[in-house]
Amino acid sequence: MDTTALGFNTINLGHGSGGVMTRDLLDKIIFKTFSNPYLNQKHDGSIVHFNNKIAISTDSFVVSPIFFKGGNIGELAVHGTVNDVAMCGAIPKYLSLAFIVEEGLKIEEFITIVNAIKLAADISGVQIITGDTKVVERGKGDKIFINTTGFGEVNPKANISTDNIKVGDKIIVNGFVAQHGMAIMSQREGLEFESTIESDTTNLNFLVNDLIDEFGNKIHLLRDPTRGGLASVLSEISQDTNKGVTIYETKIPLEKQVAAACEILGLDALYVANEGVFIAIVDADIANAVVEMMQKDEKGKNAVCIGEITSGHPNKVVMHNELGGKRIVSPLIGEQLPRIC
Amino acid sequence: MDTTALGFNTINLGHGSGGVMTRDLLDKIIFKTFSNPYLNQKHDGSIVHFNNKIAISTDSFVVSPIFFKGGNIGELAVHGTVNDVAMCGAIPKYLSLAFIVEEGLKIEEFITIVNAIKLAADISGVQIITGDTKVVERGKGDKIFINTTGFGEVNPKANISTDNIKVGDKIIVNGFVAQHGMAIMSQREGLEFESTIESDTTNLNFLVNDLIDEFGNKIHLLRDPTRGGLASVLSEISQDTNKGVTIYETKIPLEKQVAAACEILGLDALYVANEGVFIAIVDADIANAVVEMMQKDEKGKNAVCIGEITSGHPNKVVMHNELGGKRIVSPLIGEQLPRIC
Repeated sequence: MDTTALGFNTINLGHGSGGVMTRDLLDKIIFKTFSNPYLNQKHDGSIVHFNNKIAISTDSFVVSPIFFKGGNIGELAVHGTVNDVAMCGAIPKYLSLAFIVEEGLKIEEFITIVNAIKLAADISGVQIITGDTKVVERGKGDKIFINTTGFGEVNPKANISTDNIKVGDKIIVNGFVAQHGMAIMSQREGLEFESTIESDTTNLNFLVNDLIDEFGNKIHLLRDPTRGGLASVLSEISQDTNKGVTIYETKIPLEKQVAAACEILGLDALYVANEGVFIAIVDADIANAVVEMMQKDEKGKNAVCIGEITSGHPNKVVMHNELGGKRIVSPLIGEQLPRIC
Repeated sequence: MDTTALGFNTINLGHGSGGVMTRDLLDKIIFKTFSNPYLNQKHDGSIVHFNNKIAISTDSFVVSPIFFKGGNIGELAVHGTVNDVAMCGAIPKYLSLAFIVEEGLKIEEFITIVNAIKLAADISGVQIITGDTKVVERGKGDKIFINTTGFGEVNPKANISTDNIKVGDKIIVNGFVAQHGMAIMSQREGLEFESTIESDTTNLNFLVNDLIDEFGNKIHLLRDPTRGGLASVLSEISQDTNKGVTIYETKIPLEKQVAAACEILGLDALYVANEGVFIAIVDADIANAVVEMMQKDEKGKNAVCIGEITSGHPNKVVMHNELGGKRIVSPLIGEQLPRIC
């Protein structure tokens, strides 16, 4: 795109000054892109109205590289927070948006990211209502970090809590795991695979809300296994509930090329980050109906039940493999893939 | 303090993994410090209830150095957002809290910052309800960046908008300007002055709310002149209202040592960042009463009327000096003092 009309090609320290250059950047890019009555007040904050319980979630995004196959840090910052609000059983409605930009970021890259944020926000049905832009010196950041905080009204039918989980509950996953992490990792390592692995970054809020509308409080918990992957979320659930989690290796949806990439890099797909994946822990008597409903949705077409909650082996996740053996899935200790989101 | 019991002395990449090390850091420091029913759910987000219009504001804090005379980045991150919510005419109630930590940050420094956040939050009457922690590699950040997003119920008596500003309105400031910026700047430059300049970082929400309770919609606008200082906020107001702003140099509260430091460093105090300062633009008939009420409060004891809104020189700020001359106060263009907040 032609950025000459803007009068600047890179983000400079002056764009974080709070003065005319800041206003210029906001007017020409941010306010122009996200124009809505809340943001257009250009005040220190925004005023909204809710009639119900609201869910709030915040995340900072520091993914490296900022552009990757299947997306960029901008849409990731929208989807990540939209999904976290959805996992609370709420309908995401508003986002705040705060940038920390390293001096020297190309304005073209900034605009590409801002446009990706706008598109992802529109598709997710959320509005950007307030924001902030800071600029740090070269070498004191890494191109761009983005914080989003999201707000949404809780679906009155939702009752999402680890306290509701009981023995016999089924664990359902909406689709292929490990795609986001392997997309970032294969790109970062300069590896080339025969097929291109793309990030699965997407908004899950509409599918999640449909499930809550249909099944209400029989959906006991929703979680998106981002950093730390499926293993970490399931470990936390087993520990928080003091119950066991049993999963079946052959049931876990894993694309062949992603499995191959994991093998080449010596990574366990269970620990690799996801961005378009969620698990639902549900009452056993609705499990099949949940899977069927998910499968009718593009974002759940590969949905499957991968396991259940057990009274045996409390606080532990046990995985049965295809040969009939089983092993304990330890929680992730340190960092497997730094800066994945 | 003794950090040996923690089992780690610095923040490592593993603390941003989403795995056991992340949970360990959260359990031992974050959840322990901020324990409350919202945060203790340890979910992806938090659910709160509001019955009214709510104000939302976000800010990322990248101040350097992270420890400065009069405070640190932690309390700054609370006060900054609490004050932004207050400037919307709202009573701050909840904060989200997101860290981006550079690998290698000393855990003692992290804990000092977390404790400062806790104390500032308690004093301001807000609870930390959800958060996030990311870790970036050495050289890809600068010790610690903090994002806070704040939420508060709008005072039903408040009607804060530039649209309400009319010719004749008075401009009142609560106290000494330029203290925060000069505290950071003198420390950063290694300058030593006879007296020590301290940041004015503080929460303004209770004083602001008292004013709204007393004077309601006769308070037309509230703004805190942080980055860009008094000059930038007044310039924006003159432009947004298409009216003139007249201020009187001799009225602007400026401590002697701050004035001296500005002179040594060649800075204009009008452009220097504040953290405990706000301006109120009010109906002329309540101006004296507003000043008197402010002066009874510790955080407004040096309050004074510094000028008014005029029909002359629209879109411009004009300052009358002590010799009877006047000059146009231009808005700040680029960066005077990078990373001041």
